[in-house]
Amino acid sequence: MHASTVVDNYATRNGDKCTKIARHDPVVWRPEYPGPLTAPDLVRYEDKGFHNIHDALSVSEIASCYNEISRLANSVDLQDDPRIVREKSSGEVRTIFDVHLLSEVVASIARRPDFLALARQILGTNAYIHQSRLNFKPGFTGGPFYWHSDFETWHAEDGMPTPRAVSISLALTPNYEVNGGLMILPGSHRTFVACAGETPSDYYKQSLVNDIPETGTPDHATLTSMADEFGIEQMVGPAGSATLFDSNCMHGSNGNITPYARSNLFIVFNSVDNSLEEPFSAPSSRPEFLAKHDFTALQPAF
Amino acid sequence: MHASTVVDNYATRNGDKCTKIARHDPVVWRPEYPGPLTAPDLVRYEDKGFHNIHDALSVSEIASCYNEISRLANSVDLQDDPRIVREKSSGEVRTIFDVHLLSEVVASIARRPDFLALARQILGTNAYIHQSRLNFKPGFTGGPFYWHSDFETWHAEDGMPTPRAVSISLALTPNYEVNGGLMILPGSHRTFVACAGETPSDYYKQSLVNDIPETGTPDHATLTSMADEFGIEQMVGPAGSATLFDSNCMHGSNGNITPYARSNLFIVFNSVDNSLEEPFSAPSSRPEFLAKHDFTALQPAF
Repeated sequence: MHASTVVDNYATRNGDKCTKIARHDPVVWRPEYPGPLTAPDLVRYEDKGFHNIHDALSVSEIASCYNEISRLANSVDLQDDPRIVREKSSGEVRTIFDVHLLSEVVASIARRPDFLALARQILGTNAYIHQSRLNFKPGFTGGPFYWHSDFETWHAEDGMPTPRAVSISLALTPNYEVNGGLMILPGSHRTFVACAGETPSDYYKQSLVNDIPETGTPDHATLTSMADEFGIEQMVGPAGSATLFDSNCMHGSNGNITPYARSNLFIVFNSVDNSLEEPFSAPSSRPEFLAKHDFTALQPAF
Repeated sequence: MHASTVVDNYATRNGDKCTKIARHDPVVWRPEYPGPLTAPDLVRYEDKGFHNIHDALSVSEIASCYNEISRLANSVDLQDDPRIVREKSSGEVRTIFDVHLLSEVVASIARRPDFLALARQILGTNAYIHQSRLNFKPGFTGGPFYWHSDFETWHAEDGMPTPRAVSISLALTPNYEVNGGLMILPGSHRTFVACAGETPSDYYKQSLVNDIPETGTPDHATLTSMADEFGIEQMVGPAGSATLFDSNCMHGSNGNITPYARSNLFIVFNSVDNSLEEPFSAPSSRPEFLAKHDFTALQPAF
């Protein structure tokens, strides 16, 4: 746990109340930093907290990546690996972490120079991969991911100082309106929700599986007021489409009874100026597969 | 159980395989029967199995009906009533049956002459109320309703001879794209899916609560082939909008983590020429709140 002399602008999980705090940091850190987004793109990102890309992956990347995912999900060697998280109800694969380390195919996507350039442009510095994961969301039995801000978890449990991180969600299957796509409250990234409760030991073992985690999620009244204020936008698009989003976006996704899996690959880029410290509100750090401690700037594989 | 000499065109739950059977009966029984739907409306209903109405309920009906529902859900007298079914995870109200008998307000809506006229026009006869229910689907914790054909259940467990019944789903809250609206496979009403397995005793006590009931639902391969063939259409509309749909439509709905409840009132009209017999594939009949045995033609309250 962090020394108490440090001023924490995002204090969370330290009381019995859920509180909204205005974001203390920029969203786009250095608008003059070069990159693929236009000035209007950056203004919209600053405003909404996300940016959609229609055709981020090629047809062959989608196919090879999806095959890799099936291979990993069915790999005998990985059956009891903690990086594979399963659906509580059906035992089907829910999430695979460290996919960029488990697969060369995913590694080459994660290191694509254009994705890194997007991340650098938003963050205004070099960046490294903080986490990668595949949310499989199988058909028929896919469970929901309840509302949360990634940054709230990464700050409390992994010691990430500020929301100077960006995720890219890459659709490996079509994200329809009906198969549990990513829902974001647009504009919510400018409000930090300090959550009630305390972080139990080894909390990640529950929180990654449970439909409604015990802590690290806003209460009903706060979520209602934010949804009323910001609305709810669902990311819909073909396989290969992508959403770049701020680490403090309030987001979640519904379950999926349709026959169509909604499988998305997430790569999280953190600024090299935002490297992890001690957890701000948890008894101990989480494993490396959830939060990397190698802060070396990523070099694009040109 | 039905005597084995009866020819059953919709034999179900009598083997270990799930089988598709072509519908043996009309969808619109007597197209010349007078009523509010136009000839093109009837052709579309015949084709897709449902018909949407934008403003079926007035603002005051929506408000009074919604208030009634809250009153019933919180009524001390009804806390242990079998007609109130609760969410397994949160204990919140999931479904209330017999709402047209529990509430004068709902009764007057259920008996609206225009709704009865729609039902009569589709069924080609007089009609009576076979069942009424409110699916509350609360915000944050609302569970899914897995894929099923109502008629498959009503035939197997309640002894309804043919799919000569029609439901009207009335939205008491907005049905958004993201709060678990009714999904129908358009055209699926012309295929009867005979389901695998047998009906356990008192099966309704499980099937009304479980996210994926043990029997009375198609297997994954059958659902996938039907969704591929027919597509999936989600019913979206403001409070007060309605969907009239055939009793053999394959339908279901996802769970709901949004703050917004998706509460719909369902009134089921059955043809007076289709009154219930013995169950076709269950050890005994279900209670009256699930399947009425008073087949008296409904008289509209003009």
